[in-house]
Amino acid sequence: MPPATPLAVPSTTPAVPANARVLSGLRPTGKIHIGHLVGALANWIELQKKYNCYFFVADWHALTTHYADTSGLQQFILDSVTDYLAVGVDPAKAVIFQQSRVPEHAELHLLLSLITPLGWLERTPTYKEQRENIQDKDLGTYGFLGYPVLQSADILIYKAGFVPVGADQVAHIELTREICRRFANFYGPVFPEPQPLLTPTPRLLGTDGRKMSKSYGNAIFLSDTETEIRSKVSNMLTDPARQRRTDPGNPDVCPVFGLHKLCSPQETIDTVNTECRRAGIGCVDCKKQMAGNLAQWIAPFTERRSKIEQQPDQVWDVLEQGSKKAHITAAATMEEVRAAMNLKQPSLLHS
Amino acid sequence: MPPATPLAVPSTTPAVPANARVLSGLRPTGKIHIGHLVGALANWIELQKKYNCYFFVADWHALTTHYADTSGLQQFILDSVTDYLAVGVDPAKAVIFQQSRVPEHAELHLLLSLITPLGWLERTPTYKEQRENIQDKDLGTYGFLGYPVLQSADILIYKAGFVPVGADQVAHIELTREICRRFANFYGPVFPEPQPLLTPTPRLLGTDGRKMSKSYGNAIFLSDTETEIRSKVSNMLTDPARQRRTDPGNPDVCPVFGLHKLCSPQETIDTVNTECRRAGIGCVDCKKQMAGNLAQWIAPFTERRSKIEQQPDQVWDVLEQGSKKAHITAAATMEEVRAAMNLKQPSLLHS
Repeated sequence: MPPATPLAVPSTTPAVPANARVLSGLRPTGKIHIGHLVGALANWIELQKKYNCYFFVADWHALTTHYADTSGLQQFILDSVTDYLAVGVDPAKAVIFQQSRVPEHAELHLLLSLITPLGWLERTPTYKEQRENIQDKDLGTYGFLGYPVLQSADILIYKAGFVPVGADQVAHIELTREICRRFANFYGPVFPEPQPLLTPTPRLLGTDGRKMSKSYGNAIFLSDTETEIRSKVSNMLTDPARQRRTDPGNPDVCPVFGLHKLCSPQETIDTVNTECRRAGIGCVDCKKQMAGNLAQWIAPFTERRSKIEQQPDQVWDVLEQGSKKAHITAAATMEEVRAAMNLKQPSLLHS
Repeated sequence: MPPATPLAVPSTTPAVPANARVLSGLRPTGKIHIGHLVGALANWIELQKKYNCYFFVADWHALTTHYADTSGLQQFILDSVTDYLAVGVDPAKAVIFQQSRVPEHAELHLLLSLITPLGWLERTPTYKEQRENIQDKDLGTYGFLGYPVLQSADILIYKAGFVPVGADQVAHIELTREICRRFANFYGPVFPEPQPLLTPTPRLLGTDGRKMSKSYGNAIFLSDTETEIRSKVSNMLTDPARQRRTDPGNPDVCPVFGLHKLCSPQETIDTVNTECRRAGIGCVDCKKQMAGNLAQWIAPFTERRSKIEQQPDQVWDVLEQGSKKAHITAAATMEEVRAAMNLKQPSLLHS
């Protein structure tokens, strides 16, 4: 396992009652990189110790943007769950499930869509941002606009009390809370209002200095071998102002230093921080040290991952069992929803 | 049963293979009036004789416009099925089901939403028309915009070959066909392209001379008593140009004459047609004759209806049994859809 520091989750706000359900999901769009690890997954590992956690593979959400080619989807789902398990997400502690195996999400999505004003969706900041920034995919679909409605259904169907988010995602939860209040207004209080659970989301830079992201091609994956890591790190961007070995550098703007802080011993971090600024260490040596430490930091995952990878049937089984558990909770909520909306006779409620 | 004439369905185009599935639904927004009877329901009765029919109570569709108050929904659903049965829709011949009891419709709706361009929906003629004309309800919702996507899911999930529509609804089926082709393009040919089945839809005028519609308050219901019918007819609008008893009238623009053609013997129709034009008959007498004939025409329904009404449990049971049958068909289609979209491993297909 990696050193405790990067995985430790600082105090969360607000305080979460121990029996509260916590919901979080990741889209299966490819292998997980170290940015995911220090972000969502590190939080999951801490959260599962304390709360009633539901973690899911958001395959329908993946299709909102990746609908045109789903040929890799089964592999991506398998990869995702393999990564979760390798990192330490524990099916004995948390419910790990696949969104599309709990079709009640779709039913609640439809019902919430009936009461969700179009304007709320059109004004979602991430909607406008993604429509403008993602140019290689046609996102002008009905389903992409409804992404936050599906997200609301995901959360509300488990009556989740808390949803771990970074500060930039609080607006999403606010939309869910608005839909939740509107539902209560029409049909009564079936759902508690979910609260955002602010979690640390260190912004890890990729090999090119931009935010680490699979779609930028600048990510280091949990499945990378030491050779792959060394090769990626040796080509990494450093402080652009440091042109020659004899120029002093600025670690604060250097992505290599960012990764040192993740994986190197404090002593090394301090040394690099001092020596770089007075040209006492060159980028090549600095990178070599970091690459070695990173490989060591990742090694326990890689080891666990390669063992788990040998048994895909067991991974599928984890997902199958978790999905069954999730389905029981979701189906119970839907019975309440149907009764509240007068879609079902109360007398038939338990038939 | 009423005379055969108004219920007879003229030749349909194109020819439908006898084993083709035919799908049609009505929104449960209140009691059925004689306009529904000579429209959709008369067609259903003919279609069930020849084809594999799926007729449904479109409760989710009712909520796209009536989401704000669902308190009457259970009664409306019961009323709808009672009316279907009273008219002669036969559960031994057709599958009669409730949309919301087949949640696979919602799942397919979600999946189709991912590939449906927003522009296709925004340009739907009925969408623009209803947004402009319906002022007492807020239709600016995500769900109302997606109405045609849900309709497409309703049709495609049964692999319906034909959908009975009036000439003004052919555009809806065209949208379903476009979504169907787009799906095939991405994921392969799971669904046949449904064809519109042009059916006669006589435009019956209401008591105020506008199209008969529950929301206009000008309808004569199948559940109306003879006293109610006589009272409604006595207040009916006639040819507005015929001010006095001695003025000649024009039956062609008179809603009373329209109903004569529905319920009176040919002899009476001919007499009224002649005498009205030369002021040989007054509106009061003409209405009395028609009201009597209409009451007689409706009587067999009223009688059957009041018997069926005594046994709501049996009506619910028809819906329950039909919904189970529909569910089996829909679930089988969804298995194919999930496999085609790579949402499920082929090996788990029948688990």
